[in-house]
Amino acid sequence: MCYKGAIVARVVVVGAGMMGSALCVPLADRGHEVHLVGTALDDGIVAELKRGLSHPGLGVALPGSIRPHPVSALGSLLEQAEWVGLGVSSAGLPWASRVLSGALSRSALPIVMITKGLQLAGGSPGQGSEPAARVLTDALARGTGAQSPPHAICGPCIAGELARRVPTAVVLAGGSEQTRRWFAEQLRTEYYRVLPHSDTLGVQACAALKNAYAMGVALAAGLHERRVGSGGSVGSVAFHNLEAALFAQSAREMAAVAAWLGGEGQTAAGLAGVGDLNVTCVGGRTGRFGRLLGAGLGRREAQARMRGATLECLEILSLVERLWGGEGPLAGRRSLPPKRDLPLLAHLVEVALHDAPAAPPLSRFFGAS
Amino acid sequence: MCYKGAIVARVVVVGAGMMGSALCVPLADRGHEVHLVGTALDDGIVAELKRGLSHPGLGVALPGSIRPHPVSALGSLLEQAEWVGLGVSSAGLPWASRVLSGALSRSALPIVMITKGLQLAGGSPGQGSEPAARVLTDALARGTGAQSPPHAICGPCIAGELARRVPTAVVLAGGSEQTRRWFAEQLRTEYYRVLPHSDTLGVQACAALKNAYAMGVALAAGLHERRVGSGGSVGSVAFHNLEAALFAQSAREMAAVAAWLGGEGQTAAGLAGVGDLNVTCVGGRTGRFGRLLGAGLGRREAQARMRGATLECLEILSLVERLWGGEGPLAGRRSLPPKRDLPLLAHLVEVALHDAPAAPPLSRFFGAS
Repeated sequence: MCYKGAIVARVVVVGAGMMGSALCVPLADRGHEVHLVGTALDDGIVAELKRGLSHPGLGVALPGSIRPHPVSALGSLLEQAEWVGLGVSSAGLPWASRVLSGALSRSALPIVMITKGLQLAGGSPGQGSEPAARVLTDALARGTGAQSPPHAICGPCIAGELARRVPTAVVLAGGSEQTRRWFAEQLRTEYYRVLPHSDTLGVQACAALKNAYAMGVALAAGLHERRVGSGGSVGSVAFHNLEAALFAQSAREMAAVAAWLGGEGQTAAGLAGVGDLNVTCVGGRTGRFGRLLGAGLGRREAQARMRGATLECLEILSLVERLWGGEGPLAGRRSLPPKRDLPLLAHLVEVALHDAPAAPPLSRFFGAS
Repeated sequence: MCYKGAIVARVVVVGAGMMGSALCVPLADRGHEVHLVGTALDDGIVAELKRGLSHPGLGVALPGSIRPHPVSALGSLLEQAEWVGLGVSSAGLPWASRVLSGALSRSALPIVMITKGLQLAGGSPGQGSEPAARVLTDALARGTGAQSPPHAICGPCIAGELARRVPTAVVLAGGSEQTRRWFAEQLRTEYYRVLPHSDTLGVQACAALKNAYAMGVALAAGLHERRVGSGGSVGSVAFHNLEAALFAQSAREMAAVAAWLGGEGQTAAGLAGVGDLNVTCVGGRTGRFGRLLGAGLGRREAQARMRGATLECLEILSLVERLWGGEGPLAGRRSLPPKRDLPLLAHLVEVALHDAPAAPPLSRFFGAS
């Protein structure tokens, strides 16, 4: 099957981490035959799911109709799959590309990436400037000759909430208008809205940058803690005014990057931009890390407090610094707008990577001279 | 003086409430001679300030160079003022218009409104469709023949934070490009950025609607509480996915109203839109009220819990309902886009004014059919 046939399909989701597993919930509710296949790292998760236990990351049991499988079953399942949801981490993409290329060499298999938004890959300097989606496209293209960017789901979605059927709206980019509509129809339930989005580059820019900017917005809370803790307390108010200024400047800079890359600035004003920024600010470790930096901790000290949590914001900011340093450009596109047009992003690089004190340059925000 | 002369001016701020008083802090730091004149309702505040005590609303002492005055001093102070900051509540605007018209009949006195954003006036049905700024414009025009809209400061600014010199960025709309620049220069300090904004209508639309939408974003937190409290708890996760969808839809609808009124949709993507929405969501009573409604309380019950706090969101939603009901249109402009284009706003009217259960219509968000 390729973008046609009945609504109900045999779907293989690759990757039994939180996001891959969470996506299986609306897929099962939609009536699909859902096969959840772990990677080589997911054996423990798959074993627990097979015993009917809660998903260890999500903390909730999946619907009984979802069938968990170890990685060894992947080959034969792909042969029967009508489409594939790809929920592996960026680190797992090279492996996934190889596996899927083999399957794709036999038939044109629709694929949608459901990792947490598209991310600029955090690999070695030479490879780092390739967006993850492009890494996959290139690998798949070598296997199949296909040229269109892979479909990807981006936007505000915390896996643990989707798994509990919290109302969620996301965008779906890549492919063509027709295939985006087909996927949106395959994916939607009453609580899960999947909106086709034509601006793949803009969505990609926002998805890549949101973690860096969420860290930036959180600096305000940390700066407040520092003021209160310094003994120079002047009352119990927060730094919400600064937080709002950082939020609005983040939206402005995401729009600038999107437009610079050839996408549409207004994408940053929607679900994929301010929506995803909103959820990333409130949703966990990125905000906590930014708060620690704002409170005056250096990068290593803040990371130590986070006990080894993966910090996408650091990966992205490292890549941004390399791009500004002359590495890149992104495959065929202009690298990034100059620092003077992205004063907040430039500040975040200094704070997060070089232990500069957090002091958002308000006077350079909003296009002021 | 009229938009010229030295940087340092003799400034009269009318209204010694929280926002008027807070603005005096950057004005004093800028070096202006600042006279803070209370309204007839502010006698108690003025008395405390004269004794050098903290401002009772702000909880912080104002700089010693600020001179507090009772309302009886207003007439003579206005005669010597070089410009005026107007910090009275919407309810005080008719009085302020009368007082200022008298002064303006003698000289062209620059005025900037520093109430909390422009608000659609919450008066009687027949008057309710007039934006506060227009009420003032009309009154001033009768006194002076001036036609341009008054200057107004809008955007994310909690008074208690500005009074403590928390970094803050706001926009200044109205007037002409030249006069906006003049005011921005008069007002700016290191921690207070005032950005001239040419889209007065768009800024006005966002400022009027932000309280309604902040209430809407907060429904998500209340819906989460209701789920947890109903015994059907499925874990400790929040409803951040829904919150983000509500935030992005709010930005979309503010842009639609701005464009419909003749302003620019992209204003909603900036400080006056998503910036102000951000701070209103986190900043206090509007969010608390929305949370109570989301948790299942009716309007009266929720209001009772709020102990009589002013709820701008209810004033705005009442006005929105009247406009949709055929009252209006806003002076010379089209009333509002139809309900089908503002599905969240239509839902908020039902929830806040008619005790409909909170159930954000996700399927109608983001332009879906």
